Amino acid sequence: MEDEVVLLASSSSAVVSMNGGGEGNTSYADNSNFQQLIASVTRKARRDMAAALYRARGRPASLAIADLGCATGPNALLMVSDAVDAVLAESKSGGDEGAPQLHVFLNDLPANDFNAVFRLLPSSPLAGTGCLVSAWPGSFYRRVFPDASLDYVVSSSSLHFLSKAPSMATEHLNRGRVHVTEAGPAAVLDAYRAQFHADFLAFLSCRAAETRARGLLLLTFVARRDARPTAHDCYLWDLLADALMDMAAAGLVDEEKVHSFNAPYYAPCPDDLARVIAKEGSFALRTMQLFDTTRRRLLGPSHPTSDGDDDDEFPRWLAAETAGTYRQGSRRAYAADPLRLGRHGRALLQVPPPARGILPQEVYQEQG
Amino acid sequence: MEDEVVLLASSSSAVVSMNGGGEGNTSYADNSNFQQLIASVTRKARRDMAAALYRARGRPASLAIADLGCATGPNALLMVSDAVDAVLAESKSGGDEGAPQLHVFLNDLPANDFNAVFRLLPSSPLAGTGCLVSAWPGSFYRRVFPDASLDYVVSSSSLHFLSKAPSMATEHLNRGRVHVTEAGPAAVLDAYRAQFHADFLAFLSCRAAETRARGLLLLTFVARRDARPTAHDCYLWDLLADALMDMAAAGLVDEEKVHSFNAPYYAPCPDDLARVIAKEGSFALRTMQLFDTTRRRLLGPSHPTSDGDDDDEFPRWLAAETAGTYRQGSRRAYAADPLRLGRHGRALLQVPPPARGILPQEVYQEQG
Repeated sequence: MEDEVVLLASSSSAVVSMNGGGEGNTSYADNSNFQQLIASVTRKARRDMAAALYRARGRPASLAIADLGCATGPNALLMVSDAVDAVLAESKSGGDEGAPQLHVFLNDLPANDFNAVFRLLPSSPLAGTGCLVSAWPGSFYRRVFPDASLDYVVSSSSLHFLSKAPSMATEHLNRGRVHVTEAGPAAVLDAYRAQFHADFLAFLSCRAAETRARGLLLLTFVARRDARPTAHDCYLWDLLADALMDMAAAGLVDEEKVHSFNAPYYAPCPDDLARVIAKEGSFALRTMQLFDTTRRRLLGPSHPTSDGDDDDEFPRWLAAETAGTYRQGSRRAYAADPLRLGRHGRALLQVPPPARGILPQEVYQEQG
Repeated sequence: MEDEVVLLASSSSAVVSMNGGGEGNTSYADNSNFQQLIASVTRKARRDMAAALYRARGRPASLAIADLGCATGPNALLMVSDAVDAVLAESKSGGDEGAPQLHVFLNDLPANDFNAVFRLLPSSPLAGTGCLVSAWPGSFYRRVFPDASLDYVVSSSSLHFLSKAPSMATEHLNRGRVHVTEAGPAAVLDAYRAQFHADFLAFLSCRAAETRARGLLLLTFVARRDARPTAHDCYLWDLLADALMDMAAAGLVDEEKVHSFNAPYYAPCPDDLARVIAKEGSFALRTMQLFDTTRRRLLGPSHPTSDGDDDDEFPRWLAAETAGTYRQGSRRAYAADPLRLGRHGRALLQVPPPARGILPQEVYQEQG
């Protein structure tokens, strides 16, 4: 019982991080299949972008690839391995004399189990590639890397975690709930949105200093489709709140703490992302894509869900992928010197250069 | 019993690393007082060199400081903290407008407990300095860091560990011994020396690629005074070999394994260091100093040893400190553009520029 009380008391103010790479029911390493599925859906786009960046840079002698919020367990090296493999394949197919020296920068909070990540290296796809791997502990809402040290920055399934729970006008504004709800007060959604905007702005501002000219960010969030959250978007948080209130009724947790607790988590809609990117101003939005990540969609229609539930009853989580290109000098320079992204097809090439102070955005829904 | 056999069987071929940052009798974190004492003896020289490097570089906006073989526990941040503190103090006393951005690169083998090091950061002297910390796992006998990424490289009490046990002409050349001995065959000493020379050459060659022009290496070894090891130099290894042979006689370990086992450890003499530095050719030796590190010397004459033994009976371990300056272009350029090391006093300034293909060396024994 004490455990639950502590959880509720501390999570609202402390930074929340994943559990370690160990075993057991609470091991993140053993409970990150969903994150892995998101990664598999975005894999081709990520590989193509890494190869395109390498070409656009004129096949440089070295390239720095970072994963922000790499976590631990089997997913920790997934993002960087895909990028490394894509760049080396591009280097080979392009007939480079020697392979580029690739630097892999892994970031997560200081409590992340980096030891477990390092133990995976010898058996990972990075082994034998000659790339140099490093770990940079710290919140990605602050500075992590040296000035102008990164070329290709990936963050997958991390940026929906806020730096802290949002500040509410009154402590019990979100009584009996732990997150935004479909029918909840607008002030709760506003508070969550404001916290996300502040955090994402800080993230972009730090990365702007750390990313080299014409570097690329590729960010994957759990997202929602529309500005107003639907019942589906809030489904799991509603379930959790109901469970906590039942526990409070049974005397297992303090009801006041359930009322005051708000999870530091926000799944942005595309408009949230575009607004903050425009406001921060260092990056130009190249493409934004919504991936449907219901379990059935991910596993394929012929793959029955393990518990026999109708998957359509589950929320349609969306992974929104945002690629921003860092620029230096005037915004117009972007149009004159676009990345050569021929392999990405029409959608990416159609993104117009920024104009009228508003960055362009196009949102694509995957054809299911 | 099984444990001892495994130790002997595997240590001769596998890379040996320190135990973790945990608790208990075998915790490196709890058993690294000697390394800490060596660090305290060399502290002033290390601080002075870091400050001098910062001045010589023209007070740059950023500086990269690395510790190779940082290990874990309370010593892991000692080297870099001293350097960071010295540079920031120099920046402040010199009236810089803003403090430089300092990058701290920590290296050790992949099995090192980096998690424990990261946990120490918030309570370390690095907290609040704004420096960016990273961990780079890998053997420092191979490439660890990107090209030309380091300015000030420290390695303390690490380079006497060989990459592997030396190859002997015959397996049982060193029967009943686990290391060089005063009266042992010259071929054993030759094999150890050859392995050290190969390893140290590889170390310097990798660091030459990774260190920026006019960067500085500051290396501290356990060392011996003369080319021929004395009984004092071999004392602890002889004790260990005697103990193992006693255990073999009692049937606790396999005697054949004691005969074939050789510890991957070599305490070089100054001539070893100077020769390899000259052979590798990328670094100019600026100063070499021998520190007397008997316990009584370190703790002070008024400090009785805990067990009442006469400390003079113990081997006089020597910590040899070597500072090499990386150069680019002709070797003569070094004389024309020396580091401004006014604070180091006469000894360092007297080191002549390299000439006649042989690098200069001066060995100072601390005035006790």
